[in-house]
Amino acid sequence: MASKTQIVALFLCFLTSTSTSSAAYGHKPRPRRPCKELVFYFHDILYKGDNYNNATSAIVGSPEWGNKTAVAQPFNFGDLVVFDDPITLDNNLHSPPVGRAQGMYVYDQKSIYSAWLAFSFLFNSTKLVGTLNFAGADPLMNKTRDISVIGGTGDFFMARGIATLMTDAFEGDVYFRLRVDIKLYECW
Amino acid sequence: MASKTQIVALFLCFLTSTSTSSAAYGHKPRPRRPCKELVFYFHDILYKGDNYNNATSAIVGSPEWGNKTAVAQPFNFGDLVVFDDPITLDNNLHSPPVGRAQGMYVYDQKSIYSAWLAFSFLFNSTKLVGTLNFAGADPLMNKTRDISVIGGTGDFFMARGIATLMTDAFEGDVYFRLRVDIKLYECW
Amino acid sequence: MASKTQIVALFLCFLTSTSTSSAAYGHKPRPRRPCKELVFYFHDILYKGDNYNNATSAIVGSPEWGNKTAVAQPFNFGDLVVFDDPITLDNNLHSPPVGRAQGMYVYDQKSIYSAWLAFSFLFNSTKLVGTLNFAGADPLMNKTRDISVIGGTGDFFMARGIATLMTDAFEGDVYFRLRVDIKLYECW
Repeated sequence: MASKTQIVALFLCFLTSTSTSSAAYGHKPRPRRPCKELVFYFHDILYKGDNYNNATSAIVGSPEWGNKTAVAQPFNFGDLVVFDDPITLDNNLHSPPVGRAQGMYVYDQKSIYSAWLAFSFLFNSTKLVGTLNFAGADPLMNKTRDISVIGGTGDFFMARGIATLMTDAFEGDVYFRLRVDIKLYECW
Repeated sequence: MASKTQIVALFLCFLTSTSTSSAAYGHKPRPRRPCKELVFYFHDILYKGDNYNNATSAIVGSPEWGNKTAVAQPFNFGDLVVFDDPITLDNNLHSPPVGRAQGMYVYDQKSIYSAWLAFSFLFNSTKLVGTLNFAGADPLMNKTRDISVIGGTGDFFMARGIATLMTDAFEGDVYFRLRVDIKLYECW
Repeated sequence: MASKTQIVALFLCFLTSTSTSSAAYGHKPRPRRPCKELVFYFHDILYKGDNYNNATSAIVGSPEWGNKTAVAQPFNFGDLVVFDDPITLDNNLHSPPVGRAQGMYVYDQKSIYSAWLAFSFLFNSTKLVGTLNFAGADPLMNKTRDISVIGGTGDFFMARGIATLMTDAFEGDVYFRLRVDIKLYECW
């Protein structure tokens, strides 16, 4: 009897190993439980010709019909913006920043507001050191938009995951605030 | 005897666990079988100064010697293009689009035609909802070029893989059509 | 006695399987041993209006206050540069290149020198065929900066890892040389 139990246990053990193996190769569904969750806000103030000191971003590329002190019409299509935005823990622009969101976005749809984002979160505090790297589409008329966490360094070594963007506020063409819900599914 | 068999079985079990562990950590070759395969076409019509309505892309950055209504000479080096291209299931520009390819590319070689791509496929139909995010080099004189699928959302949650690009057609500087063979090797 | 030993062994076996499983799902720390290590240098000579033949990169986007033959003041903020740089095995610009580093970077901080990089290494030799794709923040006043290896093709099929950048030399605004220590943690 003991022997039979052991054989069953061994079989189960093999099964576990095998299914793990398949999961590692990406051939079976993996559970979608995040290994880390984080929420941040970041704040973007676009340069419009007369606000250099306050601005955190600037148009550096524009289509033939655009320029660098006003968004292109219609739908900002073709504007490429470089940004250096403060990250805060709440939705207050004046809260002490916990990091910087740096990179670029391009408005890339002719018929509606939509952008493509490529940027990093940089942290360098007593609590958090490292970067998270992001890329993905931001069809910004949708209430929520998912982009990819494509890598990380330092405390986020080799991270992968999903970041859900929500427009928390916008004021004309100059200011917007994004809420970012980060869910990491690969932690090392 | 039973005991010996069990010990051998246990040993095998450990071995399996260990090799799985190594594979998961990336230290041993993993089988290169895709968990999902997809083929799409996308169509790019560059803005040249007089074709705004038809254009799906526009030069928004160019070197000192370039401009925004014609590709830079030689080899388009330095041109940065934003695009919003229809995706189709066959090679017909006028087939009903199943999604949009949105993002940017830069021509980045002085001595030959080559580009660097960063973009997403956006799907929002009854059959397919989500995005695939891509990045990589496109040395476009090669018959096939491989870029990375760096992430995905929705139906492509956390995907990784390889996309093989083939130039299916091009007409002067204004129109090109790419065939994209997507092979995902990580599916969740 | 034998039975007890076997039960302990089985338990250990299960433990191993389980922890592997968790690691594969990203819920437990994975060992941080690279599966491949590589060191390269690449060399960037910025176009400044009169050095077209030697230049390997060019400003193609700039803020309103910048232009395409000189970096923007202060801190180059807003300059977007496309590059096609030789890769060498040592720190000599004139060593035979083993590949090309191609892509773009943007200077994205108003208060200090910092950039965001998105590029590929392209190899096509008897020894090495394929690409490595990179993205991440380069706060270039730091001695070392970590960016992500977000994918690879050919000999680097599906690779992921970390690349540590070090400024090995710079000469004014025109020339810089980066040492890149690549550590891959996912190899297929």
